[in-house]
Formats: sequence, structure tokens, C-alpha cells
Amino acid sequence: MKVLVINCGSSSIKYQLFDADSEAVLARGQVSRIGEGSSSLRQELGRVKLQEDISVPDHRSAFKLIIRSLLDSKNGAIKDVSEISAVGHRAVHGGDYFVDSVIINEDVIARMESCIPLAPLHNPPNLMGIREAREIFPGIPHVAVFDTAFHQTLPVKAYLYALPYEYYEKHKVRRYGFHGTSHRYVSQRAVVVLNQSPDNLRMIICHLGSGVSITAINGGKSVDTSLGFTPIPGVMMGTRSGDIDPGLIFYLNRQLGLSLDIIDNILNRESGLLGISGVSNDMREIMENAQKGNKRCQLAQEMFVYQVKKYVGAYAAAMGGMDVLVFTAGIGENSPLIRRMICADMEFLGINLDKKKNDEIIAVEQIVSTVDSRVKVLVIPTNEELMIARDTIALAFPTLKNERTKPA
Amino acid sequence: MKVLVINCGSSSIKYQLFDADSEAVLARGQVSRIGEGSSSLRQELGRVKLQEDISVPDHRSAFKLIIRSLLDSKNGAIKDVSEISAVGHRAVHGGDYFVDSVIINEDVIARMESCIPLAPLHNPPNLMGIREAREIFPGIPHVAVFDTAFHQTLPVKAYLYALPYEYYEKHKVRRYGFHGTSHRYVSQRAVVVLNQSPDNLRMIICHLGSGVSITAINGGKSVDTSLGFTPIPGVMMGTRSGDIDPGLIFYLNRQLGLSLDIIDNILNRESGLLGISGVSNDMREIMENAQKGNKRCQLAQEMFVYQVKKYVGAYAAAMGGMDVLVFTAGIGENSPLIRRMICADMEFLGINLDKKKNDEIIAVEQIVSTVDSRVKVLVIPTNEELMIARDTIALAFPTLKNERTKPA
Repeated sequence: MKVLVINCGSSSIKYQLFDADSEAVLARGQVSRIGEGSSSLRQELGRVKLQEDISVPDHRSAFKLIIRSLLDSKNGAIKDVSEISAVGHRAVHGGDYFVDSVIINEDVIARMESCIPLAPLHNPPNLMGIREAREIFPGIPHVAVFDTAFHQTLPVKAYLYALPYEYYEKHKVRRYGFHGTSHRYVSQRAVVVLNQSPDNLRMIICHLGSGVSITAINGGKSVDTSLGFTPIPGVMMGTRSGDIDPGLIFYLNRQLGLSLDIIDNILNRESGLLGISGVSNDMREIMENAQKGNKRCQLAQEMFVYQVKKYVGAYAAAMGGMDVLVFTAGIGENSPLIRRMICADMEFLGINLDKKKNDEIIAVEQIVSTVDSRVKVLVIPTNEELMIARDTIALAFPTLKNERTKPA
Repeated sequence: MKVLVINCGSSSIKYQLFDADSEAVLARGQVSRIGEGSSSLRQELGRVKLQEDISVPDHRSAFKLIIRSLLDSKNGAIKDVSEISAVGHRAVHGGDYFVDSVIINEDVIARMESCIPLAPLHNPPNLMGIREAREIFPGIPHVAVFDTAFHQTLPVKAYLYALPYEYYEKHKVRRYGFHGTSHRYVSQRAVVVLNQSPDNLRMIICHLGSGVSITAINGGKSVDTSLGFTPIPGVMMGTRSGDIDPGLIFYLNRQLGLSLDIIDNILNRESGLLGISGVSNDMREIMENAQKGNKRCQLAQEMFVYQVKKYVGAYAAAMGGMDVLVFTAGIGENSPLIRRMICADMEFLGINLDKKKNDEIIAVEQIVSTVDSRVKVLVIPTNEELMIARDTIALAFPTLKNERTKPA
């Protein structure tokens, strides 16, 4: 049985085809620059790579191209579309409707539409992808897996902003959080690696990629998270500012004459690592240049680490202490240096990194704390697509059981 | 020798007259609603209270009224204006010019003027008060004590926002912090009460009043603080929101059609305890109503406590641990319950509150942690006016020594 996982953006569709039993990735690919004239498709099947530059006017054409590539007589992964038993969709914003993944029907689509004001840039392409995919792959279950769902367990003291209460009541203004699928996958894997019950574990997950979110997980449930109503706040990111004084927006508008659209663009696309370093939004480049003595890259790196440290401390306080610290996503998985800097001087929380082991670990599941460290520090590569595939199978074929998330 | 301390707002002047030697308050008072037709003056001299409803058209008239009251033949504190040897002014924003208090001259005034864009509501009345006071009290030293000065020791990783660097370079956009005079006073008193050198102490001060700021102080220096470029961020306050997702401002503007002026007003005057409770901006009323079962007052109280806890954890992480936790200002000094809630489940940081002792302490200097608590928890009533008087004396009469801030 095969499951197709779809991540549909405004001008791109990413996809992965999973074998449901082995969880192997049979093919993965991406159609880029849809509707922009010079589109492209890339697909990988193991070591075989397909690349095609071709005009793809719309998402429907993109799905047809994906099917053609999956069926490719020479380099394809399937012989017939009927081999695909279900489709899982990455969905960004489920508002407070969706506390879990769900089989898509008209009601689900209507609720996702009602969430468009909460995610005006993300939910419309999500919905378009779902509509097109349901027509292109008819008669099989489609499942929506929401970025926000895992954080629906936040207590009210953590999700409410101290604005007039009516903005929550009438307009659903609250912290939603994102990267929920990643945090859920990683927290489940951490429990497996530690061979412990999640029930009494207080875990802090540092999802450090081009987007960054820190999440506090108590007894398997998300209890606080650093992204908010939008993906701007929290720790500084590749180009997003993270937490700033909201009063700054008034200053930038009144004193410097910047429009809200310009300020929005600054906070989302010109800030973060890029804004401070002036060099790059990519931590690898920041670190290279910092190493060579570039002061602003050193500063960007220091600020990033400092902000993560503060969130770890804050979330430890939120849970009355912590037992597990996990690093994931691009920076978290691949940068021993950043992990070491974050864990420095954190012994007071019970964190003792095994520096030698940490230095050796890149993008593999591993405990990197010392044997006697009270807090276990782990590296867990995230895999949102696999989590989506698992949810899709579990909902579409509930009689099948997936044992992989259970402790060994 | 007597020192007059002035706190000049846009429509009010508060004052205290100190005896420089004993540090006794000889008189304190306030002229309110200046320029609003029905002004009033209140003055206290020990147990004697003066109250007068009188039209005060401008700040100059207010100063004249203050002098008249201080000279009052029956209830006055001085016989001649010449008894006042120096005037200390509370000044809000010193930008990055002033790392300490300073004797006011034309250059100081020019620099304060250049900081007006950073504090458009506060620096103009401050400056007006200084100008008028220098004319009314000529020939004696006037000293400016800045709310921001104490936080000028913040390291760059703590004061910089992850915006494009040019906003810092060209426009001085950075965290300044406020309540610095309070934090400085309280941290000095804590050292005296503990009878320890400040050098190796990592202290977190919770200034919890109608404004709230949490400050991390390492070796006597402010290293991080929760208020920012403006007094909006950090922990929720009486009517200010504290930290919110800055992206919310775009949502409130675009989706709900609110202008920036309206949003500014919401964040400054309709949020915080008032916004969540719908009842009051005053923690005493919130607590009373919470006690009676009002859900939204309970929520406001819980959110407030939760946010303070997170800052304490974050600043402990910023300093690699903590040694001293201090509560000050209205709520911090007067609410054993809020202190107990904040210290609950914080044993992992070394905090052990002596609940019985804590319950007894209201607005007096006292250690309220258990004898074996690794982190010492203190209540220290703040006294910004005394700090201003001390700075004024120290700068105006440098040959005099003030021994009071030294450990006993």
C-alpha cells in the first residue's frame, strides 16, 4: 500500500510517495515556479534523479505532471495510479477546530476556509492543492495534517495574549503555534530513543531551522510554544525577527514613515540572521563568516544562541523543571557548535552535554548528554512527511496498526 | 542640606523634599491636572496634609505653588527657598548617551531633546519641568536621573532586536529598558540586606507594579530587562499588553480595520490585567474578584504569574543560574499570594519560599525564603525618589560621602 504526501504552496508542490508497510520513501519530488512560465520538476527515486524544465501553468497541471513522473516507464515508482491508496496533505492552519489530523470532507474544507483570515498566505494554496488533488486522485481518502493541531493542548494561560478579551472571543486571536507535526514526530521519537513512558517527561524541543520554534511538552502534550498567532515571534529565524517590542511598529511607522506593508516585509523577510549579519539567512554561512572574524555574523550567532537559551529557561520554569532537551531541524540536527553553545552554562538546569559525542553527531538520532546528565539531551532528525504518512494511514485504514511510535 | 526631587509629567508634578543627611522625607506632594482647569495640590508633611483645589494653568505656576506650599508658614517644610541646595529630576529616556545620572547643563538638555523621538510622550514634559525648575530654582545644581541609564550595561546580544542592523545603526532602535532607577535602588538594598558583595551575585528583580519589569543583574550590572524600546513588552501590566506576537498588529489593521493609533491605544491602555479581566487594571481588585470566583480575574492572575515565572526562568538561563530573587513595587511588595504563586514549583532553580514568613511580609525589607533555600528570595520596597536624591547629592556635592548603599 502506498501513500502520497503533498505539501502545496502558492507556487510549488512538494511530494513524497511512501510505502505504508516499510515506511520507505519510494519517490520524492517538487514542482517549482508553478504559473511563472519557467517551471521545473525534480524527482528522486533512490539514486535516480529526474529533472525537467517545463511550463506548468497551474496546480492541476502540476499534479498531472507529478503523476506522469511517478508513472514514468523507465524511472517511475508506480505502474498505475490505483496503487496510491491515500493522500496526506500538509495543512498549515486549523484554527481551534482541529486538535488532530482528519479525513478531508466538505465540512473540513469549509472549516479550513473559515481559517483563511488566520493564515491568508498559507491556507488558500493548501485548499487549492486539496481540491485539485481530490479531483486528480478521486475515490481514495485524503487526510489533512495541521501544523497547528499539536499545540491545541496549550493551557489558556499560555495561549492567550493579554489583549482585550473580546479579540479572543470574537476573532480567535490567540497563540496557535506552528511546526506541530515536527514537534509531535520528534517528541514521539525521543520517547522511543529514551525507552521511557512520555507520561512524566518534561521535554523541550528546539526546532531550529530556517523557521525556529521551541516547544514545551509535558506528559506528551504541547504546553507552550514560541511561535504564535503568526510565525513571526519567538527566537530570531533566517529572515524573521522573532520577538520584538510591538511598540517598535508604531515607531517605524510614525518616526520613519514606513508603511505597515513595508514593516511586515521587514519583519518577515529582512530580519533575523539575515538582518543582523547582513550576509545570509543561512546559519551555515553565518557560522563560516563568524569563524573568519565577521563581527556581525558572530553577533547573529550569539543572539540566536542567547534567545534559544532564554526560551529553554522560560519553558523549564513553565513546567517546574525539565527532563529532556531535543534538537531538531536543519541547525539543530547539523550544528554541533550551536548545540554546544546553547547547552553551555546550563548545568543549573541539569543539562550536561557530552561534548565529544555531540561533536560527532550530525543528523542522526542520538543521545548527546553525558551518562550522568540529569537532563537527557538528544538529536532527533525531524520528518514531517513521515508523520503525515502515518496519520494518513492511521485515519484512512484504521484497522492497520502502526507500531513504530510505541516504545521498543 | 535639603534636596528637592521632581517627577514631571505632562499634566502633573510630583515632588519630595529630602533632608540630605538623614534621608528623611520632609515633605511630599503632587500638583495634578495642570492646565486642565480644575487642578489640585496635595502635600504631606509627616501627618499634616495640605489639599488645595486651584486652577494651575501651566508648569511654571505649578512650581510656584509647590514653593508656596513648602514655605507655608503654618504647615511648610522650609523657611526660605535658599534652604534647597539641589534639585533632582526623574528623567525617562537618556538614549544611549547617559549611562549614569548627570548634572544638567545645556549640553545635557540638547541630548535629552535628541532623545524625544525615542520617548515622544515622556521626554517633552521632563524637559519642560527641567527648564522651568532651573528658572524657579536658579543658581543651584540640577541633576537628571534616567530611567534607562542602569540598563546601559546590557550586552549587545540582549539589547539588539533581530531587525535589519541599520535600524540600530541609523535610528538607535534597540532595547533600552525602564524602571532603571528602581532596579538600581532595589539591587543595592538587596546587597545590604544580604550583607554580601554584589560581585558574584546573579539577581533577578521583579518590579511588579502597574508597570512591570523584570531585570537580570549580574555582578551589580543590568544584563537583561523585560521592557524594551518602549514600555509595552515583557510581562502583562495593568493596562499594557506585555509581549505579543508583533504580527498581530498587521492582523488587527488588515482584518479588523483598526488604525495604528487605535491599536497603540489598545496595547497601552486597554490590555494587560484590564483587558483580560474586563474588571480592573489593579491587581488588588483582580485578586478580590478572583477569590470570589470571577473566572476572567482568575485567568488574569494566572497569566500574570505564568509570565513572570517564564521571565525568571529565562533570565536564570541568561546568567547560567541565579542566586537572588527580589520582589518590589506595588504588587511585589504587597501581595504575598502573587509572590507565593510565582515561587511555586520553582525548586528546580533553587527557590524555596518560606510560606509563613512570606505571608507576613508586606512592604518591608525582608528575606522570605527558607533558611536553606539556595536562592535567597527578598521583598524590598522600592524608592526611586530616594535614589534620585542620593544621586543628586553625590553629583552636586561630591565631597560628601553617602555610606548608606555600602554593605553594613
